Amino acid sequence: MSLYRTFSAVDAVEYARQFGAVPDPHTLVVADEIGDGNLNLVFKIRDTQGVSRVIVKQALPYVRCVGESWPLTLDRARIEAETLLVHAQYCPQHTVKVLHHDAALAVMVQEDLSHLHIWRRELVDGQAYPQAAAQVGEYLAQVLFHTSDFYQHPHEKKAAVSRFINPELCQITEDLFFTDPYRDHERNRFDTALRPTVEALWRDAALKRAVAALKHRFLANAEALLHGDIHSGSIFVGPTTLKVIDAEFGFYGPIGFDIGTVLGNLLLNFCGLPGLLAPRDAAAARDNRLQDITALWHAFSVRFSALIEVYGRDPALVESGYAEQFLKHVWQDTLGYAGTELIRRAIGFSHVADLANIVEPQARHACQRHAVELGKTLILTASDIPDAAALLARVRQSGA
Amino acid sequence: MSLYRTFSAVDAVEYARQFGAVPDPHTLVVADEIGDGNLNLVFKIRDTQGVSRVIVKQALPYVRCVGESWPLTLDRARIEAETLLVHAQYCPQHTVKVLHHDAALAVMVQEDLSHLHIWRRELVDGQAYPQAAAQVGEYLAQVLFHTSDFYQHPHEKKAAVSRFINPELCQITEDLFFTDPYRDHERNRFDTALRPTVEALWRDAALKRAVAALKHRFLANAEALLHGDIHSGSIFVGPTTLKVIDAEFGFYGPIGFDIGTVLGNLLLNFCGLPGLLAPRDAAAARDNRLQDITALWHAFSVRFSALIEVYGRDPALVESGYAEQFLKHVWQDTLGYAGTELIRRAIGFSHVADLANIVEPQARHACQRHAVELGKTLILTASDIPDAAALLARVRQSGA
Repeated sequence: MSLYRTFSAVDAVEYARQFGAVPDPHTLVVADEIGDGNLNLVFKIRDTQGVSRVIVKQALPYVRCVGESWPLTLDRARIEAETLLVHAQYCPQHTVKVLHHDAALAVMVQEDLSHLHIWRRELVDGQAYPQAAAQVGEYLAQVLFHTSDFYQHPHEKKAAVSRFINPELCQITEDLFFTDPYRDHERNRFDTALRPTVEALWRDAALKRAVAALKHRFLANAEALLHGDIHSGSIFVGPTTLKVIDAEFGFYGPIGFDIGTVLGNLLLNFCGLPGLLAPRDAAAARDNRLQDITALWHAFSVRFSALIEVYGRDPALVESGYAEQFLKHVWQDTLGYAGTELIRRAIGFSHVADLANIVEPQARHACQRHAVELGKTLILTASDIPDAAALLARVRQSGA
Repeated sequence: MSLYRTFSAVDAVEYARQFGAVPDPHTLVVADEIGDGNLNLVFKIRDTQGVSRVIVKQALPYVRCVGESWPLTLDRARIEAETLLVHAQYCPQHTVKVLHHDAALAVMVQEDLSHLHIWRRELVDGQAYPQAAAQVGEYLAQVLFHTSDFYQHPHEKKAAVSRFINPELCQITEDLFFTDPYRDHERNRFDTALRPTVEALWRDAALKRAVAALKHRFLANAEALLHGDIHSGSIFVGPTTLKVIDAEFGFYGPIGFDIGTVLGNLLLNFCGLPGLLAPRDAAAARDNRLQDITALWHAFSVRFSALIEVYGRDPALVESGYAEQFLKHVWQDTLGYAGTELIRRAIGFSHVADLANIVEPQARHACQRHAVELGKTLILTASDIPDAAALLARVRQSGA
């Protein structure tokens, strides 16, 4: 077993030569540290032509954006690699390829995706990738079905639940999604102009009860091996391709959490567009987001049902009609979790460019308020929103 | 570490002398094997006066009532001992005391309870223990609250979920409660007279969907450290005392499963009484069962709510009103799981004396049919049964 040490650029190049599975390892010469995330070192390993060939990603033993005062387990690197490997088994076309990983070094070598773009940046720029939402839906259906009780043998699933116990990363979600935004907490971040909106959250008992139920299901319901952090910043897109990265939050949780996180990020973009683009472009991009939402749920639910129909193995759960019943529960969860993502990204610890990049403060605040109000609506009225069409109607109403 | 070997009576005495925590170990001289369960050797260790002083319980590596063809993990002995130790931490007055356990030998020494009686036998004989139902409610509230997300820190709970992963014993429940009774399976056992009733189950698509949902929650929802098999045969009662034993099915599962199992056994007794006792005695005993049901839920729900109020630690889950909302979900689950217990004990693999002891076949069949029909009602109409009073009304209606 290797012993943990933080990689320098030289270490990263050496490691990529050894484990990068490139045919000409000696041509790898430069490592650019590009980690813009909060938790890791990320090196692009370039060859003598300057071409990026593989990625070396190493977990740091603390939260990078906060510093060494917030320690964080290195075991997340193992969980990330193992989650990606499981997901690649069931949806290789949309899961970043892990070429090598080492749990003790907390390091992973993965395929280079420089030819693709981070979806969030494209969404913020108003660039449409009309196939992306359906591709994410396909990814979620494949990976969540194949790790659910519909497919996995109960013995295998229980062993996997244990292997993917992820306390520290889950706690980040437990705190940042479900706890902090609903009370006065030092980690919340919002401009003074938002204070009345935020204080209304803190006083809203019905909302807090509904969020408690969502948190409880996040804590207790081990429905499938989630990605756990599938926002538009952990998705690479190209004209025909989509790849999911960054699975260190992987654990067995409620299926609606993953779908809700993606949905929430599409809605965050919807809320931010009027502050990001000129009116006509914003309106067109908003229409695209609404189409994305429909495509996401349609692709997920149609594929998930079809997989149960064809490959479902649990003799009780494959009962005709149960898939549909279960998907109603997933849809309800999806709406609720999307709502929590909208709220926490607008006023919590971790913001998104879709809102934060809006330069003009009044416009930014209006978009942030919209995100909070839409989030509340989804959480509180989920049971009155039976399907994607009803959701679009609510979203359009909210856009006043 | 000791190596596993099956204990003889002599081994059991020797072990009790060593680990029984009795002040006069040399007086222990005789071991009576009394295991009437399906899975274990159970020795009563008597002293020179013939007094039973401690119990030595050893897991066998196969299902005893089937034989060596059905192997079963010895790890269940560790899980049983550890579950009982956790439960004793929170409800010592109603949990059998574990004096010693050894995982490798799959053996446990526990306190002797010869002064008490198995509750099922008393229920079958029409003996009332008016305090028992409330005591079980107290036990369930204490052990389930203290191992739930309301109380346990998420890190501790996740570690405990992993430690109590119990695949083989859970599979017995998954198969015998939720799968076999709803299709033609060789493990089902029922007289030919019951066949029309049973075949109606196999054809009832709505029922099978509802049972699929219950099974899915049993598989996925890790709400608390359940006893996992708390029927009236795993409860000892006395005039003022109640002790729960036999926790080898312990795992993190849905809270309503434990409560529903107890409730289901009270209802099985209710269904069987007209076949077991003379009409007037049966009617009186039935009234007692209905009172037991009210007392069970009342004791559980009042204590569980009070514990959340006073000791709840999760800042989101202690939100005012959420406990009540969660208890509604638990009540719904309780009704459903009670329904599955009624059905599987009437026509599945493992029967109960409350029905099986009815000598006259026609009377037995009538009571078994009643159990099946009542089980169906609970599973299918749970959402129309808001509280214990409504349940009693349904049960009285069903007793026609």
